[in-house]
Amino acid sequence: MSKNLTSRSEDYSKWYNELVVKADLAQNSAVRGCMVIKPYGYAIWEKMQAELDRMFKETGHQNAYFPLFVPKSLFEAEEKNAEGFAKECAVVTHYRLQNDPDNPGKLRVDPEAKLEEELVVRPTSEAIIWSTYKGWIQSYRDLPLLINQWANVVRWEMRTRLFLRTAEFLWQEGHTAHATKKEALAEAELMNNVYADFAENFMAIPVIKGTKTESERFAGADETYCIEALMQDGKALQAGTSHFLGQNFAKAFDVKFANSEGTQEYVWATSWGVSTRLMGALIMTHSDDQGLVLPPNLAPNQVVIVPIYKGAEQLEELSSTVQGIMKGLRALGVTVKYDDRDTFRPGAKFAQHELQGVPLRIAIGARDLANGTVELARRDTLTKESVALEGIEQHVKDLLDEIQNALFEKAYSYREEHITEVDTFPEFKKVLKNKGGFISAHWDGTAETEDRIKEYTKATIRCIPIDGKKEEGKCVLTGNPSKQRVLFAKAY
Amino acid sequence: MSKNLTSRSEDYSKWYNELVVKADLAQNSAVRGCMVIKPYGYAIWEKMQAELDRMFKETGHQNAYFPLFVPKSLFEAEEKNAEGFAKECAVVTHYRLQNDPDNPGKLRVDPEAKLEEELVVRPTSEAIIWSTYKGWIQSYRDLPLLINQWANVVRWEMRTRLFLRTAEFLWQEGHTAHATKKEALAEAELMNNVYADFAENFMAIPVIKGTKTESERFAGADETYCIEALMQDGKALQAGTSHFLGQNFAKAFDVKFANSEGTQEYVWATSWGVSTRLMGALIMTHSDDQGLVLPPNLAPNQVVIVPIYKGAEQLEELSSTVQGIMKGLRALGVTVKYDDRDTFRPGAKFAQHELQGVPLRIAIGARDLANGTVELARRDTLTKESVALEGIEQHVKDLLDEIQNALFEKAYSYREEHITEVDTFPEFKKVLKNKGGFISAHWDGTAETEDRIKEYTKATIRCIPIDGKKEEGKCVLTGNPSKQRVLFAKAY
Repeated sequence: MSKNLTSRSEDYSKWYNELVVKADLAQNSAVRGCMVIKPYGYAIWEKMQAELDRMFKETGHQNAYFPLFVPKSLFEAEEKNAEGFAKECAVVTHYRLQNDPDNPGKLRVDPEAKLEEELVVRPTSEAIIWSTYKGWIQSYRDLPLLINQWANVVRWEMRTRLFLRTAEFLWQEGHTAHATKKEALAEAELMNNVYADFAENFMAIPVIKGTKTESERFAGADETYCIEALMQDGKALQAGTSHFLGQNFAKAFDVKFANSEGTQEYVWATSWGVSTRLMGALIMTHSDDQGLVLPPNLAPNQVVIVPIYKGAEQLEELSSTVQGIMKGLRALGVTVKYDDRDTFRPGAKFAQHELQGVPLRIAIGARDLANGTVELARRDTLTKESVALEGIEQHVKDLLDEIQNALFEKAYSYREEHITEVDTFPEFKKVLKNKGGFISAHWDGTAETEDRIKEYTKATIRCIPIDGKKEEGKCVLTGNPSKQRVLFAKAY
Repeated sequence: MSKNLTSRSEDYSKWYNELVVKADLAQNSAVRGCMVIKPYGYAIWEKMQAELDRMFKETGHQNAYFPLFVPKSLFEAEEKNAEGFAKECAVVTHYRLQNDPDNPGKLRVDPEAKLEEELVVRPTSEAIIWSTYKGWIQSYRDLPLLINQWANVVRWEMRTRLFLRTAEFLWQEGHTAHATKKEALAEAELMNNVYADFAENFMAIPVIKGTKTESERFAGADETYCIEALMQDGKALQAGTSHFLGQNFAKAFDVKFANSEGTQEYVWATSWGVSTRLMGALIMTHSDDQGLVLPPNLAPNQVVIVPIYKGAEQLEELSSTVQGIMKGLRALGVTVKYDDRDTFRPGAKFAQHELQGVPLRIAIGARDLANGTVELARRDTLTKESVALEGIEQHVKDLLDEIQNALFEKAYSYREEHITEVDTFPEFKKVLKNKGGFISAHWDGTAETEDRIKEYTKATIRCIPIDGKKEEGKCVLTGNPSKQRVLFAKAY
């Protein structure tokens, strides 16, 4: 495995692309814009899935599965949603291939197998799900309906990047139905909080909770909550969104319920999702020029043990000690791998595990055995120490907790250092250019100003922070009155 | 919830369809042939997934994810595979919709957004995966490659039935690469054994392990191993298949490896899969005229507790006892739900849980509390007993084990009673008509005879049993020599 990555300072974007491929996370496929998620990358995604799934169930949600395809007539029912996604839809028009008479051995679509109605490959599932909910909801007793789906979706993006923007991606999408506006708003906010909790406490990624401006909202939503993270190059990344959909889909699909007085009302809706994009956030928050850095919670192997030996006999001697350590670690809930491959030398193994972000590496040789010690290398700080074999298990366990915290603290400090309050537009442009990060500035609340700032600087309003100061001020561009600072940034 | 199902004897097929819908497992969707898997059905599927995933990982496999789409040129590379699936492919031809100028408010495919190369929605992933493996395999050190994928696939079936045959279904597909034929054959057989173990010991479904005849093989396979189950109407159901693919895909995609002597060789392959079809097998193996019967291993709730009370005060009294039982059951690893909904009467709850196959139901009222007993109802036998509160937890735990075994034994007896050895064709037809089940008969080994028997009787060769007698005999149709009995049946 060739290790040498381009450094972040040299070319951040190139560093990212190389890391994703060299650390065996994902690669481009033969299909334009679609990725292959490799086993190591998928194992990390599985850890995210398991934790999120647990959190969704704990908050009362159930999983279900809805069709991949959305008939065009359903797709176009909610006008804003349709408009928002029409430009990036993969469309199935035929249901059969046949031998191509002009090209022996080749196939072509069978012109006689044209679908009466085209099928859109779901870019998101509100349409197909709300057409189904119509049959599930009659009375207030059927509410709330709290459902999540793990699925693949397709959005035909023109410029794609592994994990960050791919034509097909994996995600979960929650779709809930409620009797009241208040309850639906509370659900949308709750799930945004679940995402924030997951990002911070599980992925060690600090996030800012906020709402989107109207022009950045999900197509079909009345309000979009989001969590925004900051990458090491000073660009923001939207890590999750939760939408209050009002009665838009209920009206488009005529989903009403009888309230406790027997009156028919339209149902209130939310939807919320996170995707394999989180892999991009993970990589760009913690990793360094040596490769991936994984918070212990997300590491497929939290510890790897590498034996240093000459000959089979020495290996056997080491191995019985190693088995004891592994048993002890597993009893403490630590995942550990013994890398006793004889096709690679220790140095090559060290390099690989460093590149792949294994949080702790234990190296043990005959001399260590004699001294009753092992060498313990920590991935995040790239430091090594000699540690007594006795009690190694608890030491490792504690260190993993420490690493999980340290990664969050480091990212948090970086993020805090990169939120800059500015009050004039020249300053805005200067900070954006020289420092990057979030710019906290007053905005007059108009889409026009938002657009102009975007046009001048490429920075967008990432969110109106929920916990932000309610201070009054003057718009950084127009000088018109503003009631709250918002966060601008260039973004992924 | 309206319970009354059509009885199995009246109309088996109608009974199945009604059960799937009324027990809240799945329903048809707005998309032809595609189903919605409802939360209760999906919870059962999640239990299957978790156990299978554990078994795959235990046998050394890793998960990964490959694209949904297969470019036509890759799809057609392995000729037999392409031929086998071409007739049932959903094909994406466009990547954008636009406003339809002739129909305001409607959309149409944008004629300018036609793909240069059509994309087939994967009916199975050998093509896309082997085109990827080409980049992953150089040397014998890269082998074996043991990968599994959980995914949705699409096969455009004309006649669909919930779970049994749907245009889109969920499955797992294993795709492995090996250095030798022997190793690939062993893998294909191993995974068929894993499926058999899962079906019998987890789903309580007895299966016969065998190989398929050439005409029933997977398109592109040199050998197909399978597990065949028998449904209560005497029809067989193929519950899982595992294919030895020879070097067919390696040749089609030019995947070679350098062996330890440095010589280039084509790689050997297997693939294997089970799908949401297993839900159909589950339903038709165990369920009865009252509804679903679930083996405890697959029950989202193994026990449900229903309080019998008048007024809030009585409910509160009962609830503290119930909480104690639940705690005790959970400590033993039993999943339990307290159904204290005040919107339904006990009778309605009993009916629902019976219909949904909850293995054990505990009813507890004020009188029970006074007597120190509860009423325990067993779903599989539809029997009730009064049981002491003291020690109820262990009693329930033991009973769940007993039910799991009893369901297997019952299905096994039925299956054994429905394997009939026949030696003449008139007898063959008579047994098939009057009794159904598997017919064990001699076959001369030709596709022609197989086809003729199918034409005359609709029965197909389900498998050549692996553990079958190697007895010589004469073909039941032609009288030509045969070396082994094979199993015929009508099948789903």
